[in-house]
Amino acid sequence: MAQLPLSSSSPTIFSRNKPYLKPLNQCSTSFSIAAACKNSTYPFRKLFLQRQKPRKSLVVQVNAVSTNLETPVQTSSSEPFKPQRVMVIGGDGYCGWATALHLSKKGYEVAIVDNLIRRLFDHQLGLDSLTPISSIQNRISCWKSLTGKSIELYIGDICDFEFLTETFKSFEPDAVVHFGEQRSAPYSMIDRPRAVYTQQNNVIGTLNVLFAIKEFREQCHLVKLGTMGEYGTPNIDIEEGYITITHNGRTDTLPYPKQASSFYHLSKVHDSHNIAFTCKAWGIRATDLNQGVVYGVRTDETAMHEELYNRFDYDGIFGTALNRFCVQAAVGHPLTVYGKGGQTRGYLDIRDTVQCVELAIANPANPGEFRVFNQFTEQYSVNQLAALVTNAGRKLGLNVETITVPNPRVEAEEHYYNAKHTKLVELGLKPHLLSDSLLDSLLNFAIQYKDRVDKKQIMPSVSWRKIGVKPKTVTA
Amino acid sequence: MAQLPLSSSSPTIFSRNKPYLKPLNQCSTSFSIAAACKNSTYPFRKLFLQRQKPRKSLVVQVNAVSTNLETPVQTSSSEPFKPQRVMVIGGDGYCGWATALHLSKKGYEVAIVDNLIRRLFDHQLGLDSLTPISSIQNRISCWKSLTGKSIELYIGDICDFEFLTETFKSFEPDAVVHFGEQRSAPYSMIDRPRAVYTQQNNVIGTLNVLFAIKEFREQCHLVKLGTMGEYGTPNIDIEEGYITITHNGRTDTLPYPKQASSFYHLSKVHDSHNIAFTCKAWGIRATDLNQGVVYGVRTDETAMHEELYNRFDYDGIFGTALNRFCVQAAVGHPLTVYGKGGQTRGYLDIRDTVQCVELAIANPANPGEFRVFNQFTEQYSVNQLAALVTNAGRKLGLNVETITVPNPRVEAEEHYYNAKHTKLVELGLKPHLLSDSLLDSLLNFAIQYKDRVDKKQIMPSVSWRKIGVKPKTVTA
Repeated sequence: MAQLPLSSSSPTIFSRNKPYLKPLNQCSTSFSIAAACKNSTYPFRKLFLQRQKPRKSLVVQVNAVSTNLETPVQTSSSEPFKPQRVMVIGGDGYCGWATALHLSKKGYEVAIVDNLIRRLFDHQLGLDSLTPISSIQNRISCWKSLTGKSIELYIGDICDFEFLTETFKSFEPDAVVHFGEQRSAPYSMIDRPRAVYTQQNNVIGTLNVLFAIKEFREQCHLVKLGTMGEYGTPNIDIEEGYITITHNGRTDTLPYPKQASSFYHLSKVHDSHNIAFTCKAWGIRATDLNQGVVYGVRTDETAMHEELYNRFDYDGIFGTALNRFCVQAAVGHPLTVYGKGGQTRGYLDIRDTVQCVELAIANPANPGEFRVFNQFTEQYSVNQLAALVTNAGRKLGLNVETITVPNPRVEAEEHYYNAKHTKLVELGLKPHLLSDSLLDSLLNFAIQYKDRVDKKQIMPSVSWRKIGVKPKTVTA
Repeated sequence: MAQLPLSSSSPTIFSRNKPYLKPLNQCSTSFSIAAACKNSTYPFRKLFLQRQKPRKSLVVQVNAVSTNLETPVQTSSSEPFKPQRVMVIGGDGYCGWATALHLSKKGYEVAIVDNLIRRLFDHQLGLDSLTPISSIQNRISCWKSLTGKSIELYIGDICDFEFLTETFKSFEPDAVVHFGEQRSAPYSMIDRPRAVYTQQNNVIGTLNVLFAIKEFREQCHLVKLGTMGEYGTPNIDIEEGYITITHNGRTDTLPYPKQASSFYHLSKVHDSHNIAFTCKAWGIRATDLNQGVVYGVRTDETAMHEELYNRFDYDGIFGTALNRFCVQAAVGHPLTVYGKGGQTRGYLDIRDTVQCVELAIANPANPGEFRVFNQFTEQYSVNQLAALVTNAGRKLGLNVETITVPNPRVEAEEHYYNAKHTKLVELGLKPHLLSDSLLDSLLNFAIQYKDRVDKKQIMPSVSWRKIGVKPKTVTA
């Protein structure tokens, strides 16, 4: 039997704001009964519960601002439909927490679903966020006291379908944002158990979410976090999910070929294929956000109070290139460029992550549509990032050096890279570009917390080629 | 935690021919010691154990008949290298058993690794093979008494890495043929637990095999059974694994886009991506055999004795189109065409399955090479197959009718289909084509066993669209 050796043995379920199991059964069959069962400021969401009717005749309303609805669904009123209840799976993580607050601020009713295992990884690997972060319970409590807005909390594992079922029946989401995956490429390459855990956790968790939507909320829109790493580094332009190919005189538009380069990235490739199938077979509506490398830490919402601060990873396992470079510059550690440094990727500010997710939710995919957005704003090579950080550091009086370290990964270090990213801009994305001022802000933030930096965590500790079969204790 | 609700609780390990754990530790570090530890008629296979040396300098020998070695590996002698010890994972199944016997007949030393769960599926679903099949222990015993050739047997689950480790250390394979997956699309679409089981079992099992090769037998060639279903039905020609794309003035050869249409087919897509990555990252040698629909039941070896007979599935879950049609014709049941019947696929005789696998083993992929062969011989639509069976039946005096049943699957019923399949022919495949005589033989075989047919099992019982989340008891 496959193993999940690192997860907590049995998930516990906790809801701060209401009893976990509310008697929803008797109000889950029709609009009129359902509406009477629960006070709601949103009169249309219960329409999703009309599961006795054939799917095609469901009465739902479309958002008037949507720009890409190819086959509009039926409307029963002139009121624009707006998804209101959003479940954020993985809402205690780096992108998830910032997104949950942003959506709550924007007026959505938000529930966070998380098993908190990311915090366990830190304990097990001896890592810590640069920023001190509060417990999820205190975070939500602080948000409530500052804004008056409640965020529901469900603590448990989406690989446990019984737990996931109850979250769906209890919260009744109109949209699910799924960040709830093991998200580190190096983590997935530590040892065989963690490679297996990553693929099992990510693939089965997403399968369960798809089944939950089909069974309990068939009009719910899945907004799934993918990664630009699914595409690899092909020698042709990267399109957004699909490519039109003319071959031997015939033409078709097909899924863009995938060439992922870690067990983590591969897990996202597997998810994409699984989701695409369920859109076709079951009529699921889904948006796959192939996100680039996220940098930054502050959003308007997380900056409101220290208890709301987001995590900031700079270590060799969870830290990503630009964030890690800023911390290195702040503490006087040379910037560590892996190999030749020509590795080029798409990058985006975390303030754009939350903006993109909100745009995807506000403009849902159609039933049966598998929509892919490339979610990043600018391309940089590692060497370019190092140069930007060096220049910005100089302005702050820092003497920033750069060293080359052997590349622990297996990847092209000099390659063509040109990835399209227009669809989110068409929906209204206003990018925060990587300017000197932003670097100042990021660097200043790193300097503010530099006493918390554990320099032993900075260097890469995981090798793609040396991964072994036995559980490894990673020590700095 | 993800579930494997249908598997046996704890695998048992059984080896007929030698003690399960032999003391290999002291002979696993160098050629000279290893050769002294074990009598072997094959002087070169122990070279694989030179794990202290860097991989690039390994001294191995290549098979002189190989036609597609792009970067020949070093040789230390004029003797041709021939892989000799083949582990057949899933060797008790339809393709696996026939392959194990064929390889044994050809002179390979063969070990079967199987958890026998395919037999459990029959019990749980109330199904049975058309042909009576013996226990794996009796099959192997009969083979030994007829031919004098031993086949080693390891009963256990490759998702249990401890078990897999011991099979590798004990048997020391030069090649692994991996049939050991849940292989039915309808089975994977019965309910959520079986969908999850299929992906978890297949993906994690294959990951474990890859890790076992990397850790214990890094020169071992993985011959993995994929499926033509990974490609779906694109509107352009299907190539063998890769396609050269010119896009916006640039050109690259990329993995052929995948569009699988069941959780089973998707599991094979996931495997292909995982294997491709490990070839690149670790230098694994692998051949992905994207097999078409297999028909037939007799091979030269299985026909030698009743105890060696292969299983023959005609039911709605494990039975494939042509085999099922022949049984329907034999018992006077109308041929059941799903939907319009324009669904076109590649087909091959099981005698060609065993031939193709042997060709792949005899001509191994290079270290780091991920080679893809489309393994079929002819294309047919379902309607064409029905017409062929009708005509062949008429010659035998059978009155064969055809009915259309609602398609339980989600698939195009009229589509372009032109799939390349030249690489195995270039290696020497001599196809058994689907002729009237072959149909006679298949039909006569079905008539011979028609009293064993359970007509209730013939009609499709699984719907792609109606799959639910709860465990389903499938009753005829």
